[in-house]
Amino acid sequence: MVHADSSTFAQGLSKKEVYAQIRDQAEALFDGQRNWVCNLANVASLLWHGYHSLSFPSSRVNWAGFYVLDPSRPNQLILGPFQGQVACQTIGFNRGVCGAAARTGETQLIEDVDQFPGHIACDGASKSEIVVPVVQNGRVVAIIDVDCAELNGFDMDDKAALEDLAALIAKASDF
Amino acid sequence: MVHADSSTFAQGLSKKEVYAQIRDQAEALFDGQRNWVCNLANVASLLWHGYHSLSFPSSRVNWAGFYVLDPSRPNQLILGPFQGQVACQTIGFNRGVCGAAARTGETQLIEDVDQFPGHIACDGASKSEIVVPVVQNGRVVAIIDVDCAELNGFDMDDKAALEDLAALIAKASDF
Repeated sequence: MVHADSSTFAQGLSKKEVYAQIRDQAEALFDGQRNWVCNLANVASLLWHGYHSLSFPSSRVNWAGFYVLDPSRPNQLILGPFQGQVACQTIGFNRGVCGAAARTGETQLIEDVDQFPGHIACDGASKSEIVVPVVQNGRVVAIIDVDCAELNGFDMDDKAALEDLAALIAKASDF
Repeated sequence: MVHADSSTFAQGLSKKEVYAQIRDQAEALFDGQRNWVCNLANVASLLWHGYHSLSFPSSRVNWAGFYVLDPSRPNQLILGPFQGQVACQTIGFNRGVCGAAARTGETQLIEDVDQFPGHIACDGASKSEIVVPVVQNGRVVAIIDVDCAELNGFDMDDKAALEDLAALIAKASDF
């Protein structure tokens, strides 16, 4: 049975080791379960607790979750499961870091969100951000969004690990 | 625009004042937005941050979120948006505290989960629990589930406030 301990991370693990545990646990959780809400809710929890087991700056992640295609409006994202403070409900493809990832289908690794044209300041505490598209059948169906309360919160290791996780989500979930 | 600060609670508020803020913020968030995933994701955040602004035992809430009807199987709940550690993915109506609330349509206020027949120990840290059904058109469509790492974590004030919140959710969201 699924157990809360799957989101307990040992202290002293490296970021790569934490991402490996997140991936392993996500894969186990997806076994026999393709409901996207359920799967993304648990992955948001894995990401949140994973980052908070790490040292600075990953420990300063202040939002981890998902936006998905808004079924009620084309070219718009709508809030999905997340952990952190209350978030913007909808984001147009033409707006901010999330919109750029959805529009281009490419990961956005932003060292300083205040330098990003059109950044949406849902939370003034967020200083850096990484947004990774979830692509299914050649179409962006969701994005992974992680914010950090420090500048330069993310690097190429985060990009590689989250792109791998996004591919797993796309393969394992029905949107 | 929605802002993270809506889930920031002043220190020193009473539980009734915190629930009043949660209700006000939820009502504002639901204005013009009926998507259930989006709405429940933000309410889970409001609840989590509200409890953690309070004193013992509310401060020891270790899970706050939702299960909804599983579209793939009758008489089964499936995990919705939440904040806390990884959770059980599906719960049959005949199982545990959540199942009892879904089956009976009545709030379950459980002082000690270990005394509840058939309790599902997703997280061994959870000692007490409150589960409130969300009823729409005479049918349970979701449940609010809050766990506490202390015995007797919830009282009749929690029951009244969460039942009020459940009614608001049912009125404002399309499931």
